[in-house]
Amino acid sequence: MMQTNVVTKAETQVEHILEAFKERALDRVFFVACGGSSALMYPSKYFIDRESSSITAEVYSSNEFIHRSPGTLGPSSLVILCSHKGKTPETTQAAAFAKGKGALTVALMYVGEAPLSEESDFTVNYSWAPAGQLDPHPEIMNYAILYRLSMGLLYVKEGNTKYQKLLGSLEHLDTVFAKAKAQYAEAAKTYAAQYKDEKVIYTMASGANYGVAYSFAICILMEMQWIHSQAIHAGEFFHGPFEILDKDVPFVLLMGLDETRPLEERALTFLKQYGEKLLVLDAEHFDLTGIDEELRGYLAPLVLNFVLRVYAVELAEARKHPLETRRYMFKVPY
Amino acid sequence: MMQTNVVTKAETQVEHILEAFKERALDRVFFVACGGSSALMYPSKYFIDRESSSITAEVYSSNEFIHRSPGTLGPSSLVILCSHKGKTPETTQAAAFAKGKGALTVALMYVGEAPLSEESDFTVNYSWAPAGQLDPHPEIMNYAILYRLSMGLLYVKEGNTKYQKLLGSLEHLDTVFAKAKAQYAEAAKTYAAQYKDEKVIYTMASGANYGVAYSFAICILMEMQWIHSQAIHAGEFFHGPFEILDKDVPFVLLMGLDETRPLEERALTFLKQYGEKLLVLDAEHFDLTGIDEELRGYLAPLVLNFVLRVYAVELAEARKHPLETRRYMFKVPY
Repeated sequence: MMQTNVVTKAETQVEHILEAFKERALDRVFFVACGGSSALMYPSKYFIDRESSSITAEVYSSNEFIHRSPGTLGPSSLVILCSHKGKTPETTQAAAFAKGKGALTVALMYVGEAPLSEESDFTVNYSWAPAGQLDPHPEIMNYAILYRLSMGLLYVKEGNTKYQKLLGSLEHLDTVFAKAKAQYAEAAKTYAAQYKDEKVIYTMASGANYGVAYSFAICILMEMQWIHSQAIHAGEFFHGPFEILDKDVPFVLLMGLDETRPLEERALTFLKQYGEKLLVLDAEHFDLTGIDEELRGYLAPLVLNFVLRVYAVELAEARKHPLETRRYMFKVPY
Repeated sequence: MMQTNVVTKAETQVEHILEAFKERALDRVFFVACGGSSALMYPSKYFIDRESSSITAEVYSSNEFIHRSPGTLGPSSLVILCSHKGKTPETTQAAAFAKGKGALTVALMYVGEAPLSEESDFTVNYSWAPAGQLDPHPEIMNYAILYRLSMGLLYVKEGNTKYQKLLGSLEHLDTVFAKAKAQYAEAAKTYAAQYKDEKVIYTMASGANYGVAYSFAICILMEMQWIHSQAIHAGEFFHGPFEILDKDVPFVLLMGLDETRPLEERALTFLKQYGEKLLVLDAEHFDLTGIDEELRGYLAPLVLNFVLRVYAVELAEARKHPLETRRYMFKVPY
């Protein structure tokens, strides 16, 4: 049962880390990574921001973290880092830097051993599947591990009960993803055929969903498809960016289930009135059976992210521009 | 002496606020505003992040702040808000929301009286001049007031000595701006003539300067010129966004004097190798006589922002698209 071992291993890793949390005074969490790995962390910050009155959270790009050198970084800090293959130099350096300041460091990686884990106190190995494919173990996917750690932290420190609800909900993520994939398969093809020649596509979201919009903009559209983009915050939209909108400018709007949904609803009304090239992905249309009601706002971004990857696969196909194509990354020095 | 009274008024307002800081336990600062007014606050967060070991700082767009409803918001929070005319509904609501949570609220406005000040404990009226014009009182411009408050906070709470250095440095800001305007007048015209037909222009920066890049992207390029843009963080650039670069894609890179300059230097090397349409504004080329050496990293964004406004004026002129033109803002309901 190789697959079961993968889950057991990750769950055991998390349990050891929660034990370490118990033994240590912690008042600050730094989420540190680059690009797509950083975008994963926004929902966990949203959770801590909302739910804790004693622990504060920050998200920093790895090199910004090192050079900014936050004055509050110290022995009562928890630094959670992520790098898919554990080889992102800035993130490894950030782990060493944080450890040097006395912080507790936890590394997330897909691979087993890598420089990042060597520089970190603890490691969790997450499960992963390529864009649009069903991960056999989404309950230990990167987003899920981040929530296990952040909800686990507030559980052991403040008695927050969402951690148990999370564990129950994650068991159903595989069926939620499978249903979402079937639900959006045709729509994604249609979208890709219609928008394959666009030069610019904006994304928009707020709250727990903003990181997903950011990830789609910088990793899928800019990096993998060479389409101009920006992830616009749905609240900021009305204070500058909305002037760029007309009927020819494509927008992808994410609508989640968290407390900031009114911001996304306001953006929707405006986009519908003045735009025509809209893709609206609304988590209210997902079948979230098995996900605890109280957790739906927090877990919606995971489903939105999965569905967007279904769209990414179709977009790449329609554009004849494979998601793996790069001109610089891992090809030239930088 | 109308003009002197304006300065005296603002300085007296700040002094009263610093007295209030002394009388109150404060461990968290929330900078809350929308769009360009929010972008102003990034350097002050950078300052507090770097220099304080006991006070943490956040920047939130006003509606995100209200709906996210941070768990740490309470009587030991300082909430600093800004709205140019004091009428931004979300920001006024954010002030009322913060006050309801027991926080100390300070409003920055250009105008004297407005809804925002009515909902806030304290108000500071800053000085302002249109893009590219010399403000007779830059020592009380919006950025300067934000630094007076944040450096003043760490002065009264932690004995940080940068506040005195700030006051001395701000006296010289008028001559620094005047010299920068003369220095870049011709270059701005040349740039505008060369790039007036671009459909997309990216901006990039890190650390204390990122907010200036954000402001130029969303307020000048998108809002006032209807040019597609995104403010790319110079550290994030190499983890996705850089794949969009080729010789035909214009970038504006800001290079500051703060501790994150190595990130901007790395971006410069790459932009020079693979791009051709580059505008690099480097604070090392500014004449900063009178600005304390220790403050130059913090004050460079103010000068970068001023110089970018000189470019904005020329760009608008060359494009025959006045900076005041809007299709939605203050014209249609939203």
